[in-house]
Amino acid sequence: MVNYFSSDFKLGILGGGQLGKMMLYETRKYDIQTLVLDPSSEAPSRISCDYFEQGDLMEYETVLQFGRKADVLTFEIESINIEALKQLESEGVKTYPSAATLEKIQNKAVQKEFYEQHNLPTAAFKRFPNLELLKSDVNEQKVSLPFVWKSATGGYDGKGVSVIRTEADLANLPDAECIAENLVPFKNELAVIVARNPSGEVRTYPVVEMEFHPTANQVEYVICPARIDNNVAEKARKLAENVSEAFEHVGLLAVEMFQTEDDKILINEVAPRPHNSGHYSIEASYTNQFEQQIRAILDLPLGKTDSKVGGIMVNLVGDENHEGEVLYKNIERIMGMEGVTPHIYGKKITRPFRKMGHVTIVNKDLGEARKIAEEVKNSIQVISKK
Amino acid sequence: MVNYFSSDFKLGILGGGQLGKMMLYETRKYDIQTLVLDPSSEAPSRISCDYFEQGDLMEYETVLQFGRKADVLTFEIESINIEALKQLESEGVKTYPSAATLEKIQNKAVQKEFYEQHNLPTAAFKRFPNLELLKSDVNEQKVSLPFVWKSATGGYDGKGVSVIRTEADLANLPDAECIAENLVPFKNELAVIVARNPSGEVRTYPVVEMEFHPTANQVEYVICPARIDNNVAEKARKLAENVSEAFEHVGLLAVEMFQTEDDKILINEVAPRPHNSGHYSIEASYTNQFEQQIRAILDLPLGKTDSKVGGIMVNLVGDENHEGEVLYKNIERIMGMEGVTPHIYGKKITRPFRKMGHVTIVNKDLGEARKIAEEVKNSIQVISKK
Repeated sequence: MVNYFSSDFKLGILGGGQLGKMMLYETRKYDIQTLVLDPSSEAPSRISCDYFEQGDLMEYETVLQFGRKADVLTFEIESINIEALKQLESEGVKTYPSAATLEKIQNKAVQKEFYEQHNLPTAAFKRFPNLELLKSDVNEQKVSLPFVWKSATGGYDGKGVSVIRTEADLANLPDAECIAENLVPFKNELAVIVARNPSGEVRTYPVVEMEFHPTANQVEYVICPARIDNNVAEKARKLAENVSEAFEHVGLLAVEMFQTEDDKILINEVAPRPHNSGHYSIEASYTNQFEQQIRAILDLPLGKTDSKVGGIMVNLVGDENHEGEVLYKNIERIMGMEGVTPHIYGKKITRPFRKMGHVTIVNKDLGEARKIAEEVKNSIQVISKK
Repeated sequence: MVNYFSSDFKLGILGGGQLGKMMLYETRKYDIQTLVLDPSSEAPSRISCDYFEQGDLMEYETVLQFGRKADVLTFEIESINIEALKQLESEGVKTYPSAATLEKIQNKAVQKEFYEQHNLPTAAFKRFPNLELLKSDVNEQKVSLPFVWKSATGGYDGKGVSVIRTEADLANLPDAECIAENLVPFKNELAVIVARNPSGEVRTYPVVEMEFHPTANQVEYVICPARIDNNVAEKARKLAENVSEAFEHVGLLAVEMFQTEDDKILINEVAPRPHNSGHYSIEASYTNQFEQQIRAILDLPLGKTDSKVGGIMVNLVGDENHEGEVLYKNIERIMGMEGVTPHIYGKKITRPFRKMGHVTIVNKDLGEARKIAEEVKNSIQVISKK
């Protein structure tokens, strides 16, 4: 067994955003040495690591040289140089999740084909190497409207995804490899985080539910546990576990799913890392997702994934009318509400819709938490200083 | 209202030990800038602060120059230069807890007299400027055996306290200002943490209980909630609140108490900071003590002090037969037990009885937690590498 605690062991983390920052609370708790690579000198993870390096995550040589300093390497963002990861693996640097898994996930077309090959349920789709071929298929009615367009690469936080209802909608799409996916009517958007360590121990977190704004098409609350039937929840957890097994995944895998009108569960997409849908776990779970990620990639026993209390997460995104040095208006007011904890990621500049932090509301009574979450949402504003 | 979050505001922390380290998880969560002063370049808090300075906490000029860089100043250890704190307060640096409070608490004789003056219940005692005068009082039977000797200054973690049963026991005591305190038979040693902010908002945490080893006179488990009658618990919380009020305290105050055979509550001593008896709160409470300390000293609303689940804390101290580079033997084994979280403070060298970390066990069933805590205690060992 490797001695990780207060030792010379070094964990390398590619990416220094908020996910890395929250992971560092856990490496500090365990006194595990960390190295962080991020393109920005202002990255939220520049503090709390043992060594910070500024560099491009897509640059082969930068990632290679950085990775050689680590005993185990992980990442908190998918956009990293895969070839460098592969080279590092061949040199004996343990990389979790693996380069092979990341490669399948990085490209959404490859990811979807992977589900098909493994008989894992997902919405039907067709793959296109470029926009031109998609357009001609639509024109020839080989692809029928409406459908969901997804860019094969580079999409996150809702970017790179569009619902195409008319041929005119095609005009604004970028020319890139993409898929056209059937538009499936669904009752709920759900997510399950699966943890798996190299020894094959697997644990799933409870199913969470995304509650959307009644009119704007935007997630307002992530709610744990999801307010769904137990048998549907069991089905979702089992499916997420199967996805993790199929990828032979090591570390956390966040599996986003649709619950259809007839209670089928379809995989939407996965993220091979701690995930926005698991932030509630810091306050609500026996083992939060960031500690679980550390346990998983270091082949330590996985922690209990149950919740102590109900949890709701609200994202703090920059107000659409503000850009500049950030001010969290009314943060004192929400801190006076019961069971409310803000998390401030440490980005100095707010921009419209930029993810600046999140707020967790915990309560033994989930309905009560839901009411308080609404008060939180109606009170706090992420604006810029005058 | 001051803007603390992702702003230019700076919180100074005197002392960079494990208490400071755990406080820094919270300042990172809120993205509050921190400055830390500690005599050791290897201090656990050297990482995660924005600025670390190595320097002597008892040196007037060092503390003064450091404090001038901060907007609000706090401390995680009592042995700091009070005159420098007073000067800083006069210059407008907000110091919480205040120099006046710390001065009363630093000297145990002054602390005891303060309780008498404020009619706060504590064991009867007599104050002595030096050992000689204590000896002559014992000799003349003005102080009767047995009694508890306490050094007025410099004592912590059981140092500076001795039970004197015979005149011969006096021989080993250092010549220092001291008190002789009545030896009160008690059923339980309890503690309550009180949080109070400058606006006067006050919240107490539930009563915790120290469970001692059946033969060795050593605390084995800190248990929350204490397994005592509700009315005794209420009395203890009310008393702790009164102590905090009497000191006009700002920040956390840990009040250690005795529950006598006839269910009286007597103050033993206080600590004006986060405390070992509150470590359970990181996993068990809605608001952990370190976050509460930040909220209190920055005059933010205080958080809910209730527990989500039962919590038990076990200290990780260095094995008595080991000195050298630390190894946490069987840490993987305890991490496989339900609801178990180790905290490793990050001290490279273990020494007999040195506080190296702690382990928290949480469970909805406190009895179950107690069983697991015993397994933890019987499994993990803090030893040195071969």
